[in-house]
Amino acid sequence: MSLTPEQIAEIAAQRAHQTPTYRAVSPGLEAQLYSAMPLLDHGFVRAVDYMGDDGAIVQAARVSYGRGTKAARNDEGLIRYLMRHWHSTPFEMCEIKLHVKLPIFVARQWIRHRTANVNEYSARYSIMDKEYYIPAPEQLAAQSSTNRQGRGDVLEGEEAHRVLTLLREDAELTYGHYHEMLNEGPPDADGKPTALDPSRQGLARELARMNLTLNAYTQWYWKTDLHNLFHFLRLRADAHAQYEIRVYADAIGELTKAWVPMAYAAFEDYRLNAATLSGPALAAVKRMLAGETVTQADSGVSAGEWREVMGMLGRE
Amino acid sequence: MSLTPEQIAEIAAQRAHQTPTYRAVSPGLEAQLYSAMPLLDHGFVRAVDYMGDDGAIVQAARVSYGRGTKAARNDEGLIRYLMRHWHSTPFEMCEIKLHVKLPIFVARQWIRHRTANVNEYSARYSIMDKEYYIPAPEQLAAQSSTNRQGRGDVLEGEEAHRVLTLLREDAELTYGHYHEMLNEGPPDADGKPTALDPSRQGLARELARMNLTLNAYTQWYWKTDLHNLFHFLRLRADAHAQYEIRVYADAIGELTKAWVPMAYAAFEDYRLNAATLSGPALAAVKRMLAGETVTQADSGVSAGEWREVMGMLGRE
Amino acid sequence: MSLTPEQIAEIAAQRAHQTPTYRAVSPGLEAQLYSAMPLLDHGFVRAVDYMGDDGAIVQAARVSYGRGTKAARNDEGLIRYLMRHWHSTPFEMCEIKLHVKLPIFVARQWIRHRTANVNEYSARYSIMDKEYYIPAPEQLAAQSSTNRQGRGDVLEGEEAHRVLTLLREDAELTYGHYHEMLNEGPPDADGKPTALDPSRQGLARELARMNLTLNAYTQWYWKTDLHNLFHFLRLRADAHAQYEIRVYADAIGELTKAWVPMAYAAFEDYRLNAATLSGPALAAVKRMLAGETVTQADSGVSAGEWREVMGMLGRE
Amino acid sequence: MSLTPEQIAEIAAQRAHQTPTYRAVSPGLEAQLYSAMPLLDHGFVRAVDYMGDDGAIVQAARVSYGRGTKAARNDEGLIRYLMRHWHSTPFEMCEIKLHVKLPIFVARQWIRHRTANVNEYSARYSIMDKEYYIPAPEQLAAQSSTNRQGRGDVLEGEEAHRVLTLLREDAELTYGHYHEMLNEGPPDADGKPTALDPSRQGLARELARMNLTLNAYTQWYWKTDLHNLFHFLRLRADAHAQYEIRVYADAIGELTKAWVPMAYAAFEDYRLNAATLSGPALAAVKRMLAGETVTQADSGVSAGEWREVMGMLGRE
Repeated sequence: MSLTPEQIAEIAAQRAHQTPTYRAVSPGLEAQLYSAMPLLDHGFVRAVDYMGDDGAIVQAARVSYGRGTKAARNDEGLIRYLMRHWHSTPFEMCEIKLHVKLPIFVARQWIRHRTANVNEYSARYSIMDKEYYIPAPEQLAAQSSTNRQGRGDVLEGEEAHRVLTLLREDAELTYGHYHEMLNEGPPDADGKPTALDPSRQGLARELARMNLTLNAYTQWYWKTDLHNLFHFLRLRADAHAQYEIRVYADAIGELTKAWVPMAYAAFEDYRLNAATLSGPALAAVKRMLAGETVTQADSGVSAGEWREVMGMLGRE
Repeated sequence: MSLTPEQIAEIAAQRAHQTPTYRAVSPGLEAQLYSAMPLLDHGFVRAVDYMGDDGAIVQAARVSYGRGTKAARNDEGLIRYLMRHWHSTPFEMCEIKLHVKLPIFVARQWIRHRTANVNEYSARYSIMDKEYYIPAPEQLAAQSSTNRQGRGDVLEGEEAHRVLTLLREDAELTYGHYHEMLNEGPPDADGKPTALDPSRQGLARELARMNLTLNAYTQWYWKTDLHNLFHFLRLRADAHAQYEIRVYADAIGELTKAWVPMAYAAFEDYRLNAATLSGPALAAVKRMLAGETVTQADSGVSAGEWREVMGMLGRE
Repeated sequence: MSLTPEQIAEIAAQRAHQTPTYRAVSPGLEAQLYSAMPLLDHGFVRAVDYMGDDGAIVQAARVSYGRGTKAARNDEGLIRYLMRHWHSTPFEMCEIKLHVKLPIFVARQWIRHRTANVNEYSARYSIMDKEYYIPAPEQLAAQSSTNRQGRGDVLEGEEAHRVLTLLREDAELTYGHYHEMLNEGPPDADGKPTALDPSRQGLARELARMNLTLNAYTQWYWKTDLHNLFHFLRLRADAHAQYEIRVYADAIGELTKAWVPMAYAAFEDYRLNAATLSGPALAAVKRMLAGETVTQADSGVSAGEWREVMGMLGRE
Repeated sequence: MSLTPEQIAEIAAQRAHQTPTYRAVSPGLEAQLYSAMPLLDHGFVRAVDYMGDDGAIVQAARVSYGRGTKAARNDEGLIRYLMRHWHSTPFEMCEIKLHVKLPIFVARQWIRHRTANVNEYSARYSIMDKEYYIPAPEQLAAQSSTNRQGRGDVLEGEEAHRVLTLLREDAELTYGHYHEMLNEGPPDADGKPTALDPSRQGLARELARMNLTLNAYTQWYWKTDLHNLFHFLRLRADAHAQYEIRVYADAIGELTKAWVPMAYAAFEDYRLNAATLSGPALAAVKRMLAGETVTQADSGVSAGEWREVMGMLGRE
């Protein structure tokens, strides 16, 4: 289970009462605010604050384009127009803050998105919980033989069993030694830490943490604007993203859909489900539409790109 | 007057009803939300949305530092500790969105703060209103004789009169010609623009705007996090900032104080009213505290810095 | 002419001698370094420094992907692969610094690209030169009747004449008054400013500048990485960008092509000349390729987007 | 040893010949370019490219402040003035690119500096080398009893021995299992990977990596501008930074000093060795300078801050 009793109580307390506000409110996200969506074996994501809604995007666009915009387009049409033409600043007017619990190797990918604000649990300051990610058997895949950064067939039988045993035993062992090196018992009556074994000093937390494995769970508050969130989702909800980060992106996609339904629908059409054709590929498509038979050899498109384009067009 | 009747009606509508939310609410900022603070002769600033309060800073810090923090410090002490030790990420968890009307030459300084989101009224797309900044007589200062980027004495008599006349006439004239070149009348029944003078085509808006002077007013939505807002305030609420941007910084300071009173008090003590001593200046102060008489010559501090340090220490 | 004699002498001095370096060198950009490309009537752009070349992109990608990459692909193929798959970080390893002289209304658009470093000439500190942009007659266009932020037909005859006269006279007049209000004569023997008219104090520079029109020229050093430069070029070298910024983007495109020819060719194919199809538009293209006749009405694509897609596919 | 024979050969090749350039050259950094400074047990840092020198800072400031600056100040005085008055943009005109090999737990701290460009070795794509950080005995410290995120006494005797044994054995064990799960042998004649044990498929690299401990070494190219580099150094070369990142900051400080000696000296005086006094602390210092005896109780300064201020002033 991913939530501690304290966290469950905290969520219940956060959802216990409402306060009146003059601000724009998103009913869809209010319904889910603070609630945790469980992910992987011990992870979760939950929205803990937000600013703006679909209307805020429209409002910002209308500051830019002035009165004329009002008559000309309804809100949904305007949002779709902005998305299609890469007018990103109105989407930056919305902001969301998430609380995420995730394995460290996922956190290392995630943090590469730089335009976000982050407060992460500090293993320099505090002691890590004993929680680590062990993949579900159906996620235990072999290296792909065609894609150097992808997965192939699911492992089965003894090999799968051996892998799961190794991952579990090594995480147990290294956490146990982490704990032993720290040598910290429960705090005393004054809240001061005590030694498990009074004959030892205990290793500094900032050093002991290095014995943990990369599947240990960490957690953070992560805050970003809607434009950058869409960029994150486009890369991480993609089929080529690693499964362990994709489940987070998918869950955040659900939250985003509840929060700004019009903007999310535009994002699906113009980003998630869109396809980009290079200049040479576009020329080939034009020739095909004119009835010509075009081959990779006479298209000026490389073999690798040709394969991708044919896939995109459903002509494999 | 800085607000149009439409804007006054819009503000009244925005303040007409509240909606319940599960989010953290700042009572101080709710009381001022949407209301415009008039600045200069036609400008204003108003908060139109926000996310988080003092509690959000504390909450983010506690995610980082874990349980131990809770017992050890109360909220205000923790916020002051974070500010003093330059722990900036918890302050980034709060966000504010402002609607600002300001002269273009002020906007040009302001926009140099890059870590913010902006939607500005587009003079490429829409027609600028006839509003421009004319300084109040007491702001009409001569060039400072000591500071190449500062003001000296207030101009008086005929020189002051002449300057005000020139500023006003030139703005009137260039705006009039802008309008003439545009050649746009009020929209017709279908909302289409009409020509003032049907014998002329009218110059494209994106070109005509170049005839406006730099004191013409523009407006934008500007959104930033609390950490970057404090950085903006430290530079722009400073005595060396140009008066015309300082009045905006001061007004935003008031809004910030209402929004996050604990964080703002810490900002005043540790940033606005703080002083930084260089290594050599600190060495000089130590010697002075030990009873030595220290002169600039034997301090290793340059004459310019020495003057600044003595000013800081009230020993001019 | 856009360059002062001092600037011409400075460029000659900068190109007078070379120094040996261990760093990667781009022969194409070295040939143009410091030289100014004249733009509009008084503007220019010139590269004044750079870091990295095509090889630096490849090198950074190989740190990421490890040894395997080396065998698998040649440099050009790898660069094209990175561009096609939106792997942006290797392109961030190259950096360029430009010196640009440009009208203020162009600078206001340009500065909205936030991920760059900028040092602009300060009119608060120094006196602006008497230079302002007057469009060439063939650039004097009417407002577009179909695009609210575009240009239509070129103005002719008396209307064109009147516009040019107004722009020129107003810039002359406001600059003259700016100068009068400043009341600064040439510096004396000690380098101190003198008064033109000793009976007046002169208005502070930070105030007097507000009387200038938006077509006054300013200048800055602007530094950015190659990834963000490509983003700038994609938006500003586009046919929908305002002509006055597009000429700068086109010139910078030339410099970029000289600097990193492989990356620039990939940028042309995969960004500049590429086309993005939304999910619904892609579905329509698939049906068309399968021999179906598809109309806007049965495509699920809005009328506006349909027009754009048909244009893209050359089927208008 | 931190460098592989391939890396040593690569460095020798990079330093084997020079090319003439028109760009500004920093003799100090050229002398060290590409050479690796060994750090910790297997880490290193080396400069692999740079842009600009002290002169570039001055040049950018003079674009901003115009001609007047030239006469008024020499280069060093101007750089010191800029640093003292927090004029950060001229320092952003210089850029450096570093190649760093470092333990993952250090990389996790480092990456929190967001305004940098990074290309990291991908364990999703490639196999990690068998290298992990084991602290030198004199760095094996107990948790500090006064500072929750600091180190106290050095561990000794049996406890030290036990800690070193655990760290070494756990890293060995988990790396061995990582390797076993991957099941990859040396590539065959065509460069294709082979299986160590042909009866097993091998786990995908992106999954197997999660079994590594946080002291495993990674490497990256890291590029940043001088302003942000100074910010990094101020935080990470500080006595409160964790030793394992401080050694990197110190080494980068040496490179920076060789690269831009004037700017680095100003940084030392105005940042590294500077002290900031809060408003209330400044008031107390003024009273002390006036001969008053001031106590914490009557200073309005909290006990914690008072302790810090007295330490700063050498009056503990």
